[in-house]
Amino acid sequence: MSGIDKSAAEAEVVRNKQLLLKDHVIGFPKESDFIISTENAISLNVPENSKGVLLKNLYLSCDPYFRALMIKPDHSIKTPFPAFTPGLPLYGYGVAKVLDSEHQNFKKGDLVWGTTGWEEYTLTTQTNSLFKVENTNVHLSYYVGILGLAGITAYGGFFDVCHPKKREKVFVSAAAGAVGQLVGQFAKLTGCYVVGSAGSKEKVDHLKNKFRFDDAFNYKEEDDLDAALKRYFPEGIDIYFENFGGKMLDAVLQNMNMNGRISVCGMISQYNLEKTEGVHNLMWLFYKRITMRGFSAFEFYHLFPKFAEFVLPHIQENRLIYVEDIAEGMESGPSALVGLFSGRNVGKQLVFVARE
Amino acid sequence: MSGIDKSAAEAEVVRNKQLLLKDHVIGFPKESDFIISTENAISLNVPENSKGVLLKNLYLSCDPYFRALMIKPDHSIKTPFPAFTPGLPLYGYGVAKVLDSEHQNFKKGDLVWGTTGWEEYTLTTQTNSLFKVENTNVHLSYYVGILGLAGITAYGGFFDVCHPKKREKVFVSAAAGAVGQLVGQFAKLTGCYVVGSAGSKEKVDHLKNKFRFDDAFNYKEEDDLDAALKRYFPEGIDIYFENFGGKMLDAVLQNMNMNGRISVCGMISQYNLEKTEGVHNLMWLFYKRITMRGFSAFEFYHLFPKFAEFVLPHIQENRLIYVEDIAEGMESGPSALVGLFSGRNVGKQLVFVARE
Repeated sequence: MSGIDKSAAEAEVVRNKQLLLKDHVIGFPKESDFIISTENAISLNVPENSKGVLLKNLYLSCDPYFRALMIKPDHSIKTPFPAFTPGLPLYGYGVAKVLDSEHQNFKKGDLVWGTTGWEEYTLTTQTNSLFKVENTNVHLSYYVGILGLAGITAYGGFFDVCHPKKREKVFVSAAAGAVGQLVGQFAKLTGCYVVGSAGSKEKVDHLKNKFRFDDAFNYKEEDDLDAALKRYFPEGIDIYFENFGGKMLDAVLQNMNMNGRISVCGMISQYNLEKTEGVHNLMWLFYKRITMRGFSAFEFYHLFPKFAEFVLPHIQENRLIYVEDIAEGMESGPSALVGLFSGRNVGKQLVFVARE
Repeated sequence: MSGIDKSAAEAEVVRNKQLLLKDHVIGFPKESDFIISTENAISLNVPENSKGVLLKNLYLSCDPYFRALMIKPDHSIKTPFPAFTPGLPLYGYGVAKVLDSEHQNFKKGDLVWGTTGWEEYTLTTQTNSLFKVENTNVHLSYYVGILGLAGITAYGGFFDVCHPKKREKVFVSAAAGAVGQLVGQFAKLTGCYVVGSAGSKEKVDHLKNKFRFDDAFNYKEEDDLDAALKRYFPEGIDIYFENFGGKMLDAVLQNMNMNGRISVCGMISQYNLEKTEGVHNLMWLFYKRITMRGFSAFEFYHLFPKFAEFVLPHIQENRLIYVEDIAEGMESGPSALVGLFSGRNVGKQLVFVARE
């Protein structure tokens, strides 16, 4: 009885484990760039009339764009989100359960995905970055992957940027990652010939056997990327989905076909270099009338309903496979984050924080 | 009487001065890479039923794409035309008069423009590369410039590739050249803010005073191209018309606005380098959602009628200025060709061969 009286009368305060950025990162991120802190506590009740929502975080997404948020903010560069602040938790996409709400659109017990903090509990008023989980017959974690940012990135970046046609030749780099694995499978569903590159034997096996790419290779075992591409694409490349950058892009450019399209999603091989590699083969852009377009997933957020309609039946009928690399517990966060940039993850990297 | 009998009975044969490629060119073209030959003779009569046309060449066009035709053919690179052959005349666009014809579409006295040889007289059967000169109230030489390849290149490469809107900020490199001067003026006619770069004080003066660019600078006098661009574009660049390549492209990339467009026409600073300069700032493509498209003028040939309708009134009413750099006589050909790659020409470089 006294317990009930207490929770109604005053806020329940609990420890809130967090993953903090220690300081701005220079070069390759190290586990020591992050701190697991148990020093903070949080009230599980939302202040009345605050329009806030109290989230219990279940899954947190590790994304390559995080690297850009770890540097000292450089106003000449437009990052997709504001930089992380040393001493504060990272923030990003996550799946969470609403524990308390003072916002009309959310009620206790709702499952949501969207922007949240790298901590056990997050009190947020940025409710326009939160979306209801609408299909509970798929894995909940899919909402920070195939049904979230990675999914819409692959969908818009492939269909909207590349306009693929049946029988076209498609190359995907970093193909076993969160986005690459989807682009390859979307290309197969379109009737294209698809080859992917990745950085380990295990990933290459996944590409060929799990994701049913036509072929795949380990770029670390190729001394001559140009020769490798000529081997896999004797008729040239029509579409390149760029996740990697640098030498790979250089090799791809000289293997593109006339009117080829390059969708520039990211360049993960370049994010931790002090000076990016120079790309020398840009003259192929006019030799072959190539269109190269950089995009951001935000451009395609309006396509979410159309995307869900497209992707859900494919998931449910097993025509689309989605591989996740789930690290267990907040403590595994630093290792998961660092592994993302060394390519240790196989599939979509995320962190499991808690059960519903 | 005997003279008439002779010309009817047998072919009139004349000396045919030619400009030959001596050998495949490595590095920067030198005047000694070309030979002026007077050793050949040609009949001024077209063999009966040959479907050939005998041209007297009046103007010959010097184009940057020539550089790609001077190398030993490399089948991995798609050049716009077959390579030049050592020991044979160069070929390219020219304006000519028909002296004799066995083709139904052409008759003696017709003025034509299109593909011809670097020689005084050319016998050709490739009549699908010849077009009638339809407006004789403009300079005849304009048909190898503003009314020919350079014009359609600027028109398609600017309007079709960049989709310019009023008040957008446009930057043009190699802006005093055959294409650049037109792009800048098309941009002004569209209501854009336009800045051009060029490599001499005289060219910069032309850009500002003759072509009415909003501003212009000499890139050779700028130690820091990024700083220069920030000075001329405090609000960033919406459209970049790329004629130059290398360091300029790198500097432009970091000054592009969101949803910027880069029309890749050429990269003249790179054609004579053994190894092209590396471009390091391609990550800006996705930071700013930039579209970069390489094109070839051939894509736009179907627009010629629409283009002529657009451009002719502007020429006739002096809203478009076209500056040509005309070298006198075939003997000046080697110097004109070499000067094109050192940027010596001001405006469209061509060679005057003969009067009608």
